Amino acid sequence: MASEFDLIARYFTQPSPPGMLGVGDDCALFTPEAGRQIATSTDLLLQGRHFFPDVDPRALGHKSLAVNLSDLAAMGATPVACVLGLGLAQVDEPWVGAFAEGFLALSDRYACPLIGGDTTRSSEGAVISVTVFGSVVAGQALRRGAGQAGDDIWISGTLGRADIAYRLLAGLIPHDAARLAATRGALEWPEPRIALGQALAGVARAALDISDGLLQDLGHILKASGLGADLQYDALPIDPALQGLPADSVSHAVLAGGDVYELCFTACRSRRDAIMAIGQACAVPLTRVGALRPGSGISLTESGAPRALPRVQGFDHFTES
Amino acid sequence: MASEFDLIARYFTQPSPPGMLGVGDDCALFTPEAGRQIATSTDLLLQGRHFFPDVDPRALGHKSLAVNLSDLAAMGATPVACVLGLGLAQVDEPWVGAFAEGFLALSDRYACPLIGGDTTRSSEGAVISVTVFGSVVAGQALRRGAGQAGDDIWISGTLGRADIAYRLLAGLIPHDAARLAATRGALEWPEPRIALGQALAGVARAALDISDGLLQDLGHILKASGLGADLQYDALPIDPALQGLPADSVSHAVLAGGDVYELCFTACRSRRDAIMAIGQACAVPLTRVGALRPGSGISLTESGAPRALPRVQGFDHFTES
Repeated sequence: MASEFDLIARYFTQPSPPGMLGVGDDCALFTPEAGRQIATSTDLLLQGRHFFPDVDPRALGHKSLAVNLSDLAAMGATPVACVLGLGLAQVDEPWVGAFAEGFLALSDRYACPLIGGDTTRSSEGAVISVTVFGSVVAGQALRRGAGQAGDDIWISGTLGRADIAYRLLAGLIPHDAARLAATRGALEWPEPRIALGQALAGVARAALDISDGLLQDLGHILKASGLGADLQYDALPIDPALQGLPADSVSHAVLAGGDVYELCFTACRSRRDAIMAIGQACAVPLTRVGALRPGSGISLTESGAPRALPRVQGFDHFTES
Repeated sequence: MASEFDLIARYFTQPSPPGMLGVGDDCALFTPEAGRQIATSTDLLLQGRHFFPDVDPRALGHKSLAVNLSDLAAMGATPVACVLGLGLAQVDEPWVGAFAEGFLALSDRYACPLIGGDTTRSSEGAVISVTVFGSVVAGQALRRGAGQAGDDIWISGTLGRADIAYRLLAGLIPHDAARLAATRGALEWPEPRIALGQALAGVARAALDISDGLLQDLGHILKASGLGADLQYDALPIDPALQGLPADSVSHAVLAGGDVYELCFTACRSRRDAIMAIGQACAVPLTRVGALRPGSGISLTESGAPRALPRVQGFDHFTES
């Protein structure tokens, strides 16, 4: 059996990037650019909780980093580097190799080198901890509390695919191979909106990435900004792959479905043209779905009439059974 | 049952430190000082693997951060901030409160505020992931590969206490309440050598903290520096709490015992006075235990005669049963 250190050397060690000290010392080192703040985010992913035991390890490696890069995108930050903690029940080398391949392909693509980590044996199932570092011009980060009354609310991409894929794989809705094929990529290979987030820094106001469901995540912006929101259900960018599903499955997926990793952001009405131009430059559809208003809570309408909010308000890792 | 977000708010959220954005957004933000590099280290601690299930949660909170601060110390870095990933099988509020108390007391003491994190339910046992950020003057970090032939090898503090406490608690050596009382603090409440590490930056050459055992860790310096070492067993600072133990228990604890969190570092012979002065200023005993030499491997001597190296060469998380 390979030792911890052999494994690190074989699969995860890359040459130290210029100006950095990578894997192999007590700490990694990187040099921040002048005038920029460091943005950092950390996520813990546990087998059986955040991913299925039989998930493609390449996809898992990709997603472990993607969800963290998505947090950088949501701040408008540019990726700088990342570190990885990996606990495994056994050393399955093809599995580790495929995981590393998925992880490092994404880290290469976004110039976010893996510069440090920790590996250990777990007593049960895989444990994955990723921390990313980004940089953003001081004062330009997209903070949840920066929303102002009257701001448009925008959403990138489409909503609902990952939730439907999850519910198909978990057997919560009837088997449908064609729909699984059309939705699975969104669940297992989410694409962080890095270029969009960078372009929005200094243009948009509040932002976050939708990880726990639109209503719950928008609620975080509202709470942090001290505002309420009017949200138009019929303006929401429902993914075409949801066509033909029962209306309650669609509304659950769109309003409460997690794992979306699209950006929800607010911006002054005067910035509409600038934002549409950013969407075109980044080749990401951007949709206006409502507006911030004084008060609190979310008022949902459909064709101008009030629509009840669904009971399920997203995904809470501790309260969900 | 409290929700994930309530828990974070209640136990871990502190006001954002000046110039930083703390817990509650997609990313935390901090502003590096000009001319300094960021040092970062991450550790994954799993119940049953790195700590006993019945460990005092206050001590566990302390140690989770202490082992990471020790990595900053080993680079000569000054703590800046930290993030915490916490997976728990159930929300035991007194346990979480005590864990937070131990963690935050140490983070306060070293001005290393907790600025971000992630909490989740685990299917079995606690999962703790800590990433720390420090800063060090560019070019002054104590790297493992910076040792030069002829350098003195130094060790801070004493060796062996944590290993004996671990072996007593695990039932690997006969019960001895007095000895457990004398050694347990070193295992459960290790003190990172932050002030010492900072003072050594720019004075010493190679350094690391002894986490897996002196021989194995010194081996990392030798491999990275492309050198060998002469090590004098009778010069090693064996902790007085080991007096009266069988010689093989002592040599195992001193040479291969992990969880020490003392610094092992090398420095030019011309720096002996400067280093002794640093030890006095930091109130940490520093002991010269050998020297780097051309070649490879460790030659151990006792009273000038060769002494065999023990078979067990430290603690490898994947190869140990």
